[in-house]
Amino acid sequence: MSATVVEVEKVEKMKNKPEDDQLGFGKYFTDHMFVMEYCDETGWGNPRISPYEPITLDPAAVIFHYGQTVFEGLKAYRTNDERILLFRPDMNMKRMNKSCERLSMPPIDEAEVLDYLKQLISLEKDWVPSSEGTSLYIRPFIIATEPFLGLAPSKQYKLVIILSPVGSYYPQGIQPVDIKVEEQYTRAVRGGTGMAKTAGNYCATFNAQSTASKQGFSQVLWLDAIEKKYIEEVGTSNVFFKVNGEVITPELTGSILPGITRMSVIEMLRSWGIPVSERKISIDEVYEYHQEGALEEVFCTGTAAVISPVGAFEWRGTSININDKQIGDVSRRLYDTLTGIQTGKIADPFHWTTEVK
Amino acid sequence: MSATVVEVEKVEKMKNKPEDDQLGFGKYFTDHMFVMEYCDETGWGNPRISPYEPITLDPAAVIFHYGQTVFEGLKAYRTNDERILLFRPDMNMKRMNKSCERLSMPPIDEAEVLDYLKQLISLEKDWVPSSEGTSLYIRPFIIATEPFLGLAPSKQYKLVIILSPVGSYYPQGIQPVDIKVEEQYTRAVRGGTGMAKTAGNYCATFNAQSTASKQGFSQVLWLDAIEKKYIEEVGTSNVFFKVNGEVITPELTGSILPGITRMSVIEMLRSWGIPVSERKISIDEVYEYHQEGALEEVFCTGTAAVISPVGAFEWRGTSININDKQIGDVSRRLYDTLTGIQTGKIADPFHWTTEVK
Ligand SMILES: Cc1ncc(COP(=O)(O)O)c(C=O)c1O
Ligand SMILES: Cc1ncc(COP(=O)(O)O)c(C=O)c1O
Repeated sequence: MSATVVEVEKVEKMKNKPEDDQLGFGKYFTDHMFVMEYCDETGWGNPRISPYEPITLDPAAVIFHYGQTVFEGLKAYRTNDERILLFRPDMNMKRMNKSCERLSMPPIDEAEVLDYLKQLISLEKDWVPSSEGTSLYIRPFIIATEPFLGLAPSKQYKLVIILSPVGSYYPQGIQPVDIKVEEQYTRAVRGGTGMAKTAGNYCATFNAQSTASKQGFSQVLWLDAIEKKYIEEVGTSNVFFKVNGEVITPELTGSILPGITRMSVIEMLRSWGIPVSERKISIDEVYEYHQEGALEEVFCTGTAAVISPVGAFEWRGTSININDKQIGDVSRRLYDTLTGIQTGKIADPFHWTTEVK
Repeated sequence: MSATVVEVEKVEKMKNKPEDDQLGFGKYFTDHMFVMEYCDETGWGNPRISPYEPITLDPAAVIFHYGQTVFEGLKAYRTNDERILLFRPDMNMKRMNKSCERLSMPPIDEAEVLDYLKQLISLEKDWVPSSEGTSLYIRPFIIATEPFLGLAPSKQYKLVIILSPVGSYYPQGIQPVDIKVEEQYTRAVRGGTGMAKTAGNYCATFNAQSTASKQGFSQVLWLDAIEKKYIEEVGTSNVFFKVNGEVITPELTGSILPGITRMSVIEMLRSWGIPVSERKISIDEVYEYHQEGALEEVFCTGTAAVISPVGAFEWRGTSININDKQIGDVSRRLYDTLTGIQTGKIADPFHWTTEVK
């Protein structure tokens, strides 16, 4: 199905576009945004593309007090032959609805919102940067807007899509990163909101992240909150361990975000005949594998960096280096193949990309 | 110390005030609000009272994406001799700063913000309702406003105080409530944000609360996320158990919100010579005490209802009635004394109330 073409109110004067090497992440925004609203009586409606402009909300809006909100993150890539590709955007729409369910929010029509998203990108296509590693980051989000302080799901929502041209995650080429195993703070727990992409999960990590940064680590590794033993995620990415030729990643237990890169990596590895197992894996197990010389590679997966190799872990005062702090063969092959597919440089046998016309 | 008198921009036309019996909770807001802003370079500044009006934020503001925010909740009461009293507002300011710490947010000057809060209430004093059980609910909150999608604490914030006249929590007189012990969802876990008053903790409870409501319960009782055994809180209140003459309440472990009513109840009970212990208490222990006939009273504490007696629990298919679903003597005495102090009907030996001039 295809949504009707939305009403577009164009900006009077377009912004100057930043140079590709100035982009960074999430600092610049395009000229337009997509907005639609929900109210309990009539459902979702009033879809429109407007100039990128401030959101105006009653100070009592539920988002400000009880944080009812979900978001998504995906990218549009420019190919060498000037086409614009999205990577599995249907999966982001699906995950957004899963998040809505957990947050007591009304579902969206996935195909319809995806169509609106494409219309917005189509209008903003000149904003998709072209240098190696750059892309247009797409941030759909839904916020609860009803002005009511009672503790109950909002009866009104606003869905917004904004776009931000972003720079290469690896301006100096891929570098394996040092990771601290977090002991004090926790990210999520069973029965909580860990599997949903919702604001409250992210602010909760700032303290841990800034302590780790001060200590010289790029990210923290989150352990399960219950036994403080099983590996969950690394920063805002999923994590994989190559042990004796097999690739292991934590199973989705409800406290881990089901990454779309994670899912794609699993499918790709299997298509290559590399065994993958989704199971519980503990941090002491990882240290044991390292001790035995069986830990071959560790890498993280996520929309931001695609594949990010881990160079070292530090846990309870003991550091281990992974693969001599070099990028492993599987990590490299995954990175090249995934980014190759995303940017249209190589064939897409999985039919993961969609073109924005 | 006392803050300087803030700049006031008065509304042109005041709203019609609702009747006391129409109030409900958090539906009506007064004519004015307090606002001040923070930026990393200059700290907190620009305090002012303005008409109650929409907040305008960039769509990339951190609050919408990563939920960096804290809030407080307290009440102003009208006495029979037309004075306006606040109940331990310094404790709310203190807790707000504790919450800020957990959320990587800059601290406020507690005395200064309390002074601004009083200036706002003073201006809005005609909005403080006078019927039995009514009050003016005060909602200070801080939101992260920097337009940046990078995962890092915001460099800009807005502190807002809004006021809402609220009705009696017990229009038909106090009624003990039925509580469901929640097995599926969890509210908080050690290392998380449970001890902070932050938005993400609240939306996370909507699913559990709405299932419980459909099943005929008023609230859920939260167990600890780790062993699913120890009692944490009930809805958005703390909980107390009177067992063989002793009063027991869960100790503050980091996943429980340190209620100001909780703290006051503990001090008050001790002043009456009733022993109080803050310790771990498990749900099976509570069921055992009930079996033995030792469970005399259960009540919840919080700003909204002050004291709310529990009439029954339901856990894993077994219901128990507490004190024949009657209000216990201690619950009643606490309710009468606390509300008496809050509304200036009885003496305040603890010096808990502050008058707004
Ligand atoms: C907490 C968390 N884990 C993992 C991921 C990776 O998911 P994806 O591969 O869909 O980007 C993300 C988001 O990007 C995340 O926020
Ligand atoms: C989660 C939670 N627990 C307990 C309480 C009770 O705290 P207080 O007595 O300060 O109102 C509140 C807030 O009112 C709360 O939000």
